[in-house]
Amino acid sequence: MAEKLQGQTISYKNPPHIIAHGSIVGPEEGKGPLGDSFDLVCEDVKCEEKTWEKGEKKMVADLIELTLGKASISASDVDFLIAGDLLDQIITANFVSRDYDIPFLGIYGACSTAVEALALGSMKMDGGYADCILCFASSNYQTAERQFRTPLEYGVQYTGNNQWTVTGAGAYLLGWIGGKVWITHSTIGKVIDLGIKDANDMGAAMAPAAADTILQHFTDLNRGPQDYDMIITGDLAGIGKKILTSLLEEKNIKTGNKLQDCGAMIFGGKKKYGAGGSGCAASAVIIGSVIIPQIISGKLNRVLVIGTGALLSPLSVLQNESVPGIAHAVVIEKIPEE
Amino acid sequence: MAEKLQGQTISYKNPPHIIAHGSIVGPEEGKGPLGDSFDLVCEDVKCEEKTWEKGEKKMVADLIELTLGKASISASDVDFLIAGDLLDQIITANFVSRDYDIPFLGIYGACSTAVEALALGSMKMDGGYADCILCFASSNYQTAERQFRTPLEYGVQYTGNNQWTVTGAGAYLLGWIGGKVWITHSTIGKVIDLGIKDANDMGAAMAPAAADTILQHFTDLNRGPQDYDMIITGDLAGIGKKILTSLLEEKNIKTGNKLQDCGAMIFGGKKKYGAGGSGCAASAVIIGSVIIPQIISGKLNRVLVIGTGALLSPLSVLQNESVPGIAHAVVIEKIPEE
Repeated sequence: MAEKLQGQTISYKNPPHIIAHGSIVGPEEGKGPLGDSFDLVCEDVKCEEKTWEKGEKKMVADLIELTLGKASISASDVDFLIAGDLLDQIITANFVSRDYDIPFLGIYGACSTAVEALALGSMKMDGGYADCILCFASSNYQTAERQFRTPLEYGVQYTGNNQWTVTGAGAYLLGWIGGKVWITHSTIGKVIDLGIKDANDMGAAMAPAAADTILQHFTDLNRGPQDYDMIITGDLAGIGKKILTSLLEEKNIKTGNKLQDCGAMIFGGKKKYGAGGSGCAASAVIIGSVIIPQIISGKLNRVLVIGTGALLSPLSVLQNESVPGIAHAVVIEKIPEE
Repeated sequence: MAEKLQGQTISYKNPPHIIAHGSIVGPEEGKGPLGDSFDLVCEDVKCEEKTWEKGEKKMVADLIELTLGKASISASDVDFLIAGDLLDQIITANFVSRDYDIPFLGIYGACSTAVEALALGSMKMDGGYADCILCFASSNYQTAERQFRTPLEYGVQYTGNNQWTVTGAGAYLLGWIGGKVWITHSTIGKVIDLGIKDANDMGAAMAPAAADTILQHFTDLNRGPQDYDMIITGDLAGIGKKILTSLLEEKNIKTGNKLQDCGAMIFGGKKKYGAGGSGCAASAVIIGSVIIPQIISGKLNRVLVIGTGALLSPLSVLQNESVPGIAHAVVIEKIPEE
């Protein structure tokens, strides 16, 4: 019966188009090397709200309006929202969705959330359950630091292997008509735990999950790096990317320059940001605003996108649990011209 | 294209069977009027672990083994896990899934999580993406109180409209062969906010969402209460159930004795538990262990199950946000004999 499933990979018979995508980032991301790529850069990280959390909500609300506007679609044409974020009880996604008269599915995949949403959205589209879905995910440096680690006011010194949560949000509108790229496959990952216990060292915690999902994807479709123009992970950052490269080489998979990481790209390797960016927004803003334009322009044709998540909570760290990782993948490619 | 969607309701062409279900509860639930219905009652709420959170994990791990065993299915036959819980970053679901070599989709729908999992699982089955899915959800009085409200050690007095988080977990195995009930429809709900600001008064916060989803479901399928033998909500408890009844009556929908609520049932209305039970586990344990057996026995034929969730976090309450609700529905009915 499951004629679209091989191993962990789903092949879509009716691949949904990404008909519009939008990105919004904070001031630090705006100053980075990709700053000009994003649709909106907020100079004020609170977006003139009273708290960082309310600022994150405002950012996402603005993003949704922007994304719907790009596609000239009104909210009433959207069948479902699929979204999540890093905050406890995904309050950003919940509270933003409150302002829309659209059925909402809340998900939590840590920093893999944007790709989890795209994978679930693709299934809903291909399965005949929807004609238009809005997927979104957000994160914020200030809200994440005080929730997961220490309040910024403490002025804790970073260790160097730490990552800097990307402030921003990305949205993707799935539909049937008018897109130039589509989602052809998705690979749902397993929870993988190699016993990392340092809540700062998330790249190391997530790299084994990314390796597992990439290898599984290649096995399922009988493909390899030669079948992709780029293989891009979400937020392994500098350290995690090196570990992933080694893990793949151990299995005789050489990715060379094809392997990229959104977290390693967004701050241009500046020391201030530790090993690089992290958070749902890292992949959510870069896939839409940096990678998809390269597919549309013809520079890339087929890209394997791997969302990576570190599955920790402040409580799990206090209770001496390790940090497992998870990685979900989607294949985004140019829609062939007829 | 979306030939299976009417309004917010999806009708499955290949309705998945619920081939097994399992339930595990804590000592308080075991002493309640439905205590004998559940598969396992833990006398020790920590399940001999060091913390309540680790106890919750152990409970879910035991439940999964029990449920797979009931269907004589090994973990390697399960294509996907879909699960969530109430804890920050859904650590129960994440950490339990770590022990299985099965792709995992994390979701967060507050106390509607079990029904959200069943709805997503049904789409994945019907869409041709899976042959076997395990959905599960859990909650725990001790872990929820200290996370959402006040640590139990404070001995805070309850207000009477409070609800008592059900300790327990429910699991549902979806497949194609051998079940006696199946899932024929699902209705995904919107985030509805009527401005309730009391984090104790969750029934009142969720009732408008439940009413919205029930009314939408009836409209979408041109059905009414006469088409169902039971309409059962997740965890509105005594107060929320009364509000829901009124809201439906305002729209000329009379449900009479057909309207039931898992939260109102589980503790038998004892004053100790406030307005009644709440938590993901309320619906997760009762639908499987109390309602499905009545469908199998022929006492009921078609049941509308509505998972209800209150979308709050400790932080959103501190920031003076209201408590929006969400409700997702699935229709469970007896598989006609050929």
